[in-house]
Order: sequence, then C-alpha cells, then structure tokens
Amino acid sequence: MINGTLKHFFDEEKKQIDNRLPHIIENLNIPVQLRDAMIYSLKAGGKRIRPMLLLATLRGYNKPLSHGYDVACAIEMIHTYSLIHDDLPAMDNDDLRRGKPTNHKVFGEAMAILAGDGLLTYSFQLISSSMLLPDNVKLLLIQKMSQAAGPEGMVGGQVLDMQGEGITLSVDQLQKIHHHKTGDLLAVSVESGAILAGVSENERISLTSFAKHLGIAFQIKDDILDVEGDESSIGKPIGSDEENDKNTYPKLLGLDGAKQKLAFHISEAKKYLYETSIEHTLLEEMADYIAMRSK
Amino acid sequence: MINGTLKHFFDEEKKQIDNRLPHIIENLNIPVQLRDAMIYSLKAGGKRIRPMLLLATLRGYNKPLSHGYDVACAIEMIHTYSLIHDDLPAMDNDDLRRGKPTNHKVFGEAMAILAGDGLLTYSFQLISSSMLLPDNVKLLLIQKMSQAAGPEGMVGGQVLDMQGEGITLSVDQLQKIHHHKTGDLLAVSVESGAILAGVSENERISLTSFAKHLGIAFQIKDDILDVEGDESSIGKPIGSDEENDKNTYPKLLGLDGAKQKLAFHISEAKKYLYETSIEHTLLEEMADYIAMRSK
Repeated sequence: MINGTLKHFFDEEKKQIDNRLPHIIENLNIPVQLRDAMIYSLKAGGKRIRPMLLLATLRGYNKPLSHGYDVACAIEMIHTYSLIHDDLPAMDNDDLRRGKPTNHKVFGEAMAILAGDGLLTYSFQLISSSMLLPDNVKLLLIQKMSQAAGPEGMVGGQVLDMQGEGITLSVDQLQKIHHHKTGDLLAVSVESGAILAGVSENERISLTSFAKHLGIAFQIKDDILDVEGDESSIGKPIGSDEENDKNTYPKLLGLDGAKQKLAFHISEAKKYLYETSIEHTLLEEMADYIAMRSK
Repeated sequence: MINGTLKHFFDEEKKQIDNRLPHIIENLNIPVQLRDAMIYSLKAGGKRIRPMLLLATLRGYNKPLSHGYDVACAIEMIHTYSLIHDDLPAMDNDDLRRGKPTNHKVFGEAMAILAGDGLLTYSFQLISSSMLLPDNVKLLLIQKMSQAAGPEGMVGGQVLDMQGEGITLSVDQLQKIHHHKTGDLLAVSVESGAILAGVSENERISLTSFAKHLGIAFQIKDDILDVEGDESSIGKPIGSDEENDKNTYPKLLGLDGAKQKLAFHISEAKKYLYETSIEHTLLEEMADYIAMRSK
C-alpha cells in the first residue's frame, strides 16, 4: 500500500514521534497518575498522520526535520486530547479506541477529562518553549493551531457533529462538520510545516487547500472502512456508525458515491499540491496512502 | 470592606472585563449553542480577581491598561474553563456555581466539556492574536500561562485534590494542592502584569512570591467562609466542604488556626510586595480585600 519512499520516511519518522511523545511527558514533574493517563493515550498507537504531514512538508522543502519535532508532537497532543474527550461517556461513550480500552475506562472519567485538559494546555507550552524556533514563528504557529483546535475549528466541528446526531444531514452539512472536526487540524499540520519552512504566503495557501481536501478524503475513507473494513485492523466493530445512526458519506451517497467523492477530493488535493514548488513526492504518496489505507 | 482607591479601580475595571469577555466570544463565527454555553459561564458573575490583579499590577507601574485587557480576559477564560470542568458530574458534581445552575446543568455534560475546551483553547488564540503587544512579550505570556494552567500547574493541582479526597492530609500536602490548583493561576496573573509592564526579572520574582502567598490566603479564606459565611452571599450551601469530607484549613488547624494562617500569608505577601518598586496601594488593598471579603 505504501511505496518505497514514503515507507522509509514513515518508518524512520514515526519512530521519532512515537519515542518523543512519552519522553516529553515523562520528564515533567507532575502527579504520577496524571502522567500515566497522558502517556497511555499518547502511546495508544495511531498512525501519526498529522506529525507525518508536518514533517513531510518540511522535508519537501528540504529543511531540517529537527525544527519540526516539537511542533509535530504538540499537534499530536492536541489530536490525542480530542480523542480522549470524544470517547467520554457524555460524548461518544466509547469503550475501545484503536483496539484498546479508552482512557476513562482505564483511569476513570475525572482523570480522563484532566489528562485531555493537560495535553491540550501542554501543547502550547511545548511550542512556546521550543528552543530552535524564532519568536515570530512560534507565535504564528500558536495562533494558527489554537484557531484550528478551538471553537472556530475542531471544538466547533465537534459541536456540529453532536447536533447532527439522529438528523439526516445534507452532504454539504456533513462536509462542514468534517471540515472543522477533522480537516482543520490536518490542514494546520501541513500549514505548520510550511510556516517552519518559511515559504511564501501563496505557497502556504495552496498547501492548506491541499490539506483541506485531504482532510475530507480522510474522513470519507474512515466512513468507507466502517462499512467494508476488517474489524481487527481498524480496531473497532464494523458497522458501528450505522448502528449509532451516524451521518456518513456511504449513508448519504451510497458506497459507490462515497468512493467517487473520495477520488474527487484526492484529485483536488493533488491539483493544489502541484501548484506549489514543493518536492511533492512524499505528500502525494501520503494522499494515496490516505485514500488506499485498510485501517 | 474595600476602601476608596480600590473600590473606584474595581468598579471601573471590573466593568471593562465584564463587558469585554462576552463581546470577544459573540464576535466568533461558531455554533450558536457553543457560543451560548461559553458566554453563560463567562457572564456568571465572579469577582474577576485574576484580571484585577493583572490590571492593578500594570497600573502600579503606571502603564496603560489598554495593553492588558486581552491578556486579563484570556486568564479569566482559563479560570472559567477550569470551573466548568471542575463542576462536571465526574468531578465535583456541583449543581450550583455562584448561585446559578452550573454549565452542564443548563447545556448538558457534552456541551459543558466542549465549552471548557473551547475557552481554554481560545485563551491562547486571544493572546497570540492581540494587536498591541510585541511577539516576545506574547510568547513569554503564553509560556508562563500554559505552565501555570497545565499539568505542572492547575491541572496537576486538580489531580492532587482529587487524590486527597477521603484521606486526611497534612497542612503541607493541602498547601501543595492549593499552591497549584489556585495559586499558580493567581501568581501568573500578577506575573503577566509585570511582564506587560516590562519590569526586571528580580521585580517579577518578588511580585510572583507576593501572588503565591496571596493565592494560599485566598484559599484559606474560601475555606473559612465555607464554615462561617453567609449562604446567600457565597452562592453555595454553608458547610458543603465538611459534608463532602473535604480537606480544609479549618478542619486541619481549627478555625482560629486557619485565621492565624490567613494573617501570616497576607503579611508574607505584603513583605514581598514592599520589596518591589511598584506603587503598591492597589495590590496591598487587594490583599486586604482577599483576607476580609465576605464572599
């Protein structure tokens, strides 16, 4: 599924992120149970797509990846906090995430709320304290990231998602939800790479459009996998979306319609990618990976 | 209780904060119910002690308050998020806050979690986007504030507090809890004022020590009010701490012992305040107000 260039990059860099994330938290002087709860979810697997998008963007501009690791970890912390809070009984009430018990199942609900709060807050501490970056870059990253993660971005998308439950939505409404719930943080991952690489505003805008289409494609693929995926590889029961009466692309468009829409957004994403001056092999392959993945 | 100088300052500046907080959120393009939930808790009264500490510090150094409003509002947003999450059924399970139904009682648990997440995230967006401040100042503020609010600060204190429930703690253990749970955010309010005023590192250290003692005094006074306060003015049932088997200063030291400890920390706070070159009338009166308040 993943070809040679991307596979090598993925193998190397995913290891970096997998090692760095718990290491950062282990070094904090904080209550042991809080540390354990934060690390548990950071270590609970995951594809690290957001950090990889950031690092692949940096690499595409031939910049040192060392400047990107803290920011990549911060974005993964924000993503992880959102999963912990989404899984809570008051939210999606999920017992399993990536095949493992969810944070509140292991540490209790109160600790899960606080572990999420802690990861979100620490992500900003991590960027603001990063040694390798100039002040104006760190500040722009914090600005973009808080906007993508906050009420105008991911948190707002989560609210729209909740409000859409039990109602049949239009494709446009569904797209707006995912645009914010998933797309904004994926887009800011690529944008952060571009900011770190110091490229022009125009270049950044094209890359952000690339990432927004990628975000929608990612969600469509998620929905398709829920219908036809392999239970053991996606880590949750097949058909759980339908059971939960969720709005999904296959439900609104049929399975073939959803696959066509996936192909459309991957093709749009690439169109924007080709507008930039980036050496685009890695990001192009990530787009193909997102469309073709089996989990 | 509050004398002339402080009362005038409080009346004027509390109005500024009370008006600005909802105004900032009203202007965001976000789902209506999320906006309502965020504004509900921002408007639910409160003494605005953290913003007032920041503004009183700026004023004490004869600096324009206009440079402090965004940061003061950001700190109050962080404080408000922490109250919303603390009140959740999985945490303190409180139905009332300042005499009004808590956020989750009005908007439901899921929305309360997201309103808290939204306020926390937006506080960093607000500072990073503030127009009046140079990049290095904004970055230092974000660094200090995320540390004070995160796992090493307020979130960690909340975990320690949870873990201490049902166990009789030593005064030192209780102090450590409150140092992080309440003290760190109060201290960073004063420190932010000092950062905005551009004073020396030494000056900032003395002011932070002032604020840390003030934070402990604040908590001791809260505990005393729970024993002997007036129910209608503190907005929660008298004796609720004892009923919840909470560790409090009066429980560990007796009421007289707690009052002596309060006086000690107010006096220590002032000692550090007098070490600085600040025109200290307002902060001194705030310390007295914290010790003498009836709610």
